[in-house]
Amino acid sequence: MPDRPIGVFDSGIGGLTVVRELVRALPGESIVYFGDTARVPYGSKSRETVIRYSEEAAALLLAHDVKLIVIACNTATAYAGERLASRLPVPVVGVIEPGARAAAAASTRKRVGVIGTLGTIRSGAYDLAVRRKLADVQVYAQPCPLFVPLVEEGWAEHPATHLIAEEYLRPLQAEHIDVLVLGCTHYPLLRGLIGQVMGPTVQLVDSAVETAREVRGVLGGTGLLRTTASPPRYRFLASDSPMRFREVGQLFVGELMEAVQHVDPEAYGHVTS
Amino acid sequence: MPDRPIGVFDSGIGGLTVVRELVRALPGESIVYFGDTARVPYGSKSRETVIRYSEEAAALLLAHDVKLIVIACNTATAYAGERLASRLPVPVVGVIEPGARAAAAASTRKRVGVIGTLGTIRSGAYDLAVRRKLADVQVYAQPCPLFVPLVEEGWAEHPATHLIAEEYLRPLQAEHIDVLVLGCTHYPLLRGLIGQVMGPTVQLVDSAVETAREVRGVLGGTGLLRTTASPPRYRFLASDSPMRFREVGQLFVGELMEAVQHVDPEAYGHVTS
Repeated sequence: MPDRPIGVFDSGIGGLTVVRELVRALPGESIVYFGDTARVPYGSKSRETVIRYSEEAAALLLAHDVKLIVIACNTATAYAGERLASRLPVPVVGVIEPGARAAAAASTRKRVGVIGTLGTIRSGAYDLAVRRKLADVQVYAQPCPLFVPLVEEGWAEHPATHLIAEEYLRPLQAEHIDVLVLGCTHYPLLRGLIGQVMGPTVQLVDSAVETAREVRGVLGGTGLLRTTASPPRYRFLASDSPMRFREVGQLFVGELMEAVQHVDPEAYGHVTS
Repeated sequence: MPDRPIGVFDSGIGGLTVVRELVRALPGESIVYFGDTARVPYGSKSRETVIRYSEEAAALLLAHDVKLIVIACNTATAYAGERLASRLPVPVVGVIEPGARAAAAASTRKRVGVIGTLGTIRSGAYDLAVRRKLADVQVYAQPCPLFVPLVEEGWAEHPATHLIAEEYLRPLQAEHIDVLVLGCTHYPLLRGLIGQVMGPTVQLVDSAVETAREVRGVLGGTGLLRTTASPPRYRFLASDSPMRFREVGQLFVGELMEAVQHVDPEAYGHVTS
């Protein structure tokens, strides 16, 4: 069982920031990644649709014999995290709990900001998770719907992105937050710009780093860490064209990305229905 | 048969600009609109995936007994237009031919620009269609991937949108085009801004207007114009949450949009397979 891979899914390529951190934190583990690029994005879609897509992704990963599933998508974690955790036969780690825990630990003024997609922010999941960990905290949430398309356009450094970041982040500056959670797996690629706009007094929390740490803890605690001497395997599955996935994916994880295979997520059923 | 509705589909809400023009040009016609909001956008996805989604959308509209199908999405027209036209039992009108014809007719310097999504531009469909209609024409195509998310964010007038439009349109200005085709159904909402950036010497072609004109011609030519005295009916179907569709849709077509119904496009099969 410990030799089996970790399963990771996301609506598209953003979850590869989590893969990058998993490889850093757990260099011996094999990984199967599924990016639902035929139906990306999840962030602007309804709860019901995101739950259905997440259940299909989980069924697909279970069919690939994974020992643990990481939901490397904030929207999917917000809408389907608890549902999957309570119904799947393997441990499930989402990106929200680890990020919320790190934010609660880092905040001294008890004024925490969260940025994410429309779906993540509307769900209120970060708000709830941070409050559970830190009494009397104020949480300020701000959706930033244009950040994902800007990152995917390769415009992380563009003056327009700067202008948009200033507009999105102004309300959080006005609230004098001391910690800001990057609540979307694409946002670590805007870390420099966001840090520049928010200034040095605001600490940024990267959910990808915290999630990898959590996965290491869960695997260690359940005796599931891989100990085999042979090198780990990385497999990448996508529901849209493998070619474009590979192209953009190499920006995230470099030479780890070899072959990408096309899969149909509708073919594996819904794990929980 | 003439009493049956016109079927219109798009990846999401953008195709409602075509509905608006259809209602203006053909106020007596009933319309069934399908927006594939659970899988939007099509513009960044592969040919194979867009063809499959388009076939499912066409099957769904045929099940609603339509007399003609309008593909109100440039990417779907580019990838699946000819395939659907040659295989469906009803006339099919895409948005590319009418736009290309108008551009060819309007250009005196024979320097035509086209803007659209990545998928539309990569397909080369406008380029081919304009060349077929105008000998020795030069066609300059420019993808503008951020325009759709900017429109959906409601930022048609934002300074960042201005900055982004200037960057996208600069290569077209440098080529001294005299006609610019708005090759995406969202772009008419940026018409003011695009006109301002390009200046008064460049004529803008709105594919939605041209497509409505084409539909009127096809219905008239085949004896399919509705002549019943009773008022027409408008139905709106969406694959994601009807609530959000209605919210955004009312910005496009106002009080025409009453109830929106949820449908599953995977339930109707593929018309051509």
